[in-house]
Amino acid sequence: RINGDRLWDSLMEMAKVGPGVAGGNNRQTLTDEDAEGRRLFQSWCEAAGMTMAVDTMGNMFMTRPGTDPDALPVYMGSHLDTQPTGGKYDGVLGVLGGLEVVRSMNDLGIKTRHPIVIANWTNEEGTRFAPAMLASGVFAGIHTQDWAYDRADAKGLKFGDELKRIGWVGDEAVGARADKIHAMFELHIEQGPILEAEGKDIGVVTHGQGLSWTQVTVTGKDAHTGSTPMPMRRNAGLGMARILELVDEIAWSHKPHAVGAAGHIDVYPNSRNVIPGKVVFTVDFRSPDIAVIRDMEQRLAIGAKTICDDMGLGLELEKVGGFDPVKFDEGCVTAIRNAAERLGYSHRDIISGAGHDACWINKVAPTAMIMCPCVDGLSHNEAEEITRDWAKAGADVLLHAVLETAEI
Amino acid sequence: RINGDRLWDSLMEMAKVGPGVAGGNNRQTLTDEDAEGRRLFQSWCEAAGMTMAVDTMGNMFMTRPGTDPDALPVYMGSHLDTQPTGGKYDGVLGVLGGLEVVRSMNDLGIKTRHPIVIANWTNEEGTRFAPAMLASGVFAGIHTQDWAYDRADAKGLKFGDELKRIGWVGDEAVGARADKIHAMFELHIEQGPILEAEGKDIGVVTHGQGLSWTQVTVTGKDAHTGSTPMPMRRNAGLGMARILELVDEIAWSHKPHAVGAAGHIDVYPNSRNVIPGKVVFTVDFRSPDIAVIRDMEQRLAIGAKTICDDMGLGLELEKVGGFDPVKFDEGCVTAIRNAAERLGYSHRDIISGAGHDACWINKVAPTAMIMCPCVDGLSHNEAEEITRDWAKAGADVLLHAVLETAEI
Ligand SMILES: NC(=O)NCCC(=O)O
Ligand SMILES: NC(=O)NCCC(=O)O
Repeated sequence: RINGDRLWDSLMEMAKVGPGVAGGNNRQTLTDEDAEGRRLFQSWCEAAGMTMAVDTMGNMFMTRPGTDPDALPVYMGSHLDTQPTGGKYDGVLGVLGGLEVVRSMNDLGIKTRHPIVIANWTNEEGTRFAPAMLASGVFAGIHTQDWAYDRADAKGLKFGDELKRIGWVGDEAVGARADKIHAMFELHIEQGPILEAEGKDIGVVTHGQGLSWTQVTVTGKDAHTGSTPMPMRRNAGLGMARILELVDEIAWSHKPHAVGAAGHIDVYPNSRNVIPGKVVFTVDFRSPDIAVIRDMEQRLAIGAKTICDDMGLGLELEKVGGFDPVKFDEGCVTAIRNAAERLGYSHRDIISGAGHDACWINKVAPTAMIMCPCVDGLSHNEAEEITRDWAKAGADVLLHAVLETAEI
Repeated sequence: RINGDRLWDSLMEMAKVGPGVAGGNNRQTLTDEDAEGRRLFQSWCEAAGMTMAVDTMGNMFMTRPGTDPDALPVYMGSHLDTQPTGGKYDGVLGVLGGLEVVRSMNDLGIKTRHPIVIANWTNEEGTRFAPAMLASGVFAGIHTQDWAYDRADAKGLKFGDELKRIGWVGDEAVGARADKIHAMFELHIEQGPILEAEGKDIGVVTHGQGLSWTQVTVTGKDAHTGSTPMPMRRNAGLGMARILELVDEIAWSHKPHAVGAAGHIDVYPNSRNVIPGKVVFTVDFRSPDIAVIRDMEQRLAIGAKTICDDMGLGLELEKVGGFDPVKFDEGCVTAIRNAAERLGYSHRDIISGAGHDACWINKVAPTAMIMCPCVDGLSHNEAEEITRDWAKAGADVLLHAVLETAEI
């Protein structure tokens, strides 16, 4: 079993880097705080006897050698970046849970045939630079590095430039090791309400739902809110409002197999007495069923067009993120289920509602995920919370799944 | 008659200060660009033999002496500040039109019994600091100076601090001269489509419609867009969307006697994969009929409450700006109508759709407004345009109304 107190202390220590305004974290990708969090993690890993490699996307790989020089490494890991108003566990638990597994193996003098690697994947959250899971996506060959480097944040700063600025461009070619992974396990909080509601310690993640992000640009005409007669208005803000209602309607129509919302909305010129001439927002649709995702995308495209045509507004739709529903590797899933069983933790199979780096790594190597409950199913909120026991149970299962796979 | 080319040249010269990105201006109040525009205007007035006074709200008063030491001054003026994506004429025409009137009087050797004052009122637009017409409002005793100094922009910078920073806090007590105004005339572009559509040179502004700005704060709960089930969501963005639809419905229900929209919308935390936990936006309702304004405010309050209650959202409404419909002074209105008639310009009576400094000054002195057409009724847009002939006609009428009132 792992050391739950040490794991918790490390989580609390990392949470001091890039604190939020309400008890959580703002350690967005490629900020100075991200760099500081990386250095802290590096120092902990090196103290545990691991050696570091960094690739050209800033992905960090900390290695504990195995006993067989020919055996491929078993990976653990997740991400240290957070939402602007994020929690202390989303991503971090999977990285520091991996560290705790290695520390426990050191304590117990356990050697494995396969080397062990802990990965910290760059820009999992996708808030600052869309899409989410950007660097694990490049690693898995989904995106090119050039395209990723060219992603811009709201200020127009480019991913490539910011990675350089914070000093974390590594010299290993991204993806060079993608075909040399024996298996990967990602421990993550559920970010949803199911495990807590059912009183389960462990979610054995069999599938991940798919995602579709569409950036919608509605163009009207900036004009005076007072002196422009109602019939002459081309109000992009009102067009946005009608499309948001449509998004909600579409998602509900597939209940309970879909969700939909827009988290990002920018209004221009954003002045109290100017009718919005332009609104840019991102629609987030998800479902475990690819046919449902395609249906939602199509109904959005058709419905938004009708709304904008009726209002004399311009419309542009751009797909800025997406992945198909994922089925995780049966061998890895079984290793996790067996571990939970062996340790006496209550568990159930579960579908991940969120996207994870594991979803991309699953394309190049046998992969699966372990979930632990979170309070009220709340995540992407500074108030995100888990208990020490939940964290410990998740890391215990991670330890056992890894030991079984890496062979003692 | 005034010199139309000289007026136009000055308008184009001023437009070089704080240029926009699309041919218009971004010379928002209390920015470095505002200070530069003020200095340019000051230098032109001083070259025309006028002397400057500045009050503690940064309002500028440029005086041309009269022949009777006991006669109260006749005022002209408007504002030099612009929207973030504003036009070259909104406000500027009224200030530089006043300057052109004085220059023409100098050319023609005309002396008046009453002194002439050109005013540049601070923060008319109200984009950076709500409400609009802030400094003329303090001047007219509507707001206190302390309250005005405490208004904050989106970055939290205070009006009082920014006025000091740009070096335009004057030493004259604001409003000290409010009871020493013989009359005031404000020339302004219509900012609506009526004069152009009817081919009229001049709008004789008899009334101004009233305004009500309500800042709406909808609070939900930040949560993950992927893993939060639809029934558990408290989506403040969707609440905002429904309230925007209500605002539109309310305004149309009073057609053609009301308008309504929201130009300012801020979403928090504004991340693609976070259900908005908070949205702050400002509803702008206008009508020439005070009963209609009260009805719209009430229906917004009741309707928004119902929407938010149904969705489990929190709601706060704060009135951040407002003025009642205005009836301008009959003597001043007649002077304008007579001037247009005498000069042979086509004209019609008109109600101002926008708020103007004249609306507040009308509370303390006989006041009226002259309007000229603008292309497509477009304003609060960098593409705002007028013709030289329209500008000249407006300034000619301003000259004659002022000469009649200031007595040659
Ligand atoms: N786990 C997580 O929050 N990932 C961010 C990508 C997503 O929006 O699902
Ligand atoms: N004239 C003008 O655009 N004033 C700004 C205040 C308003 O919104 O009416």
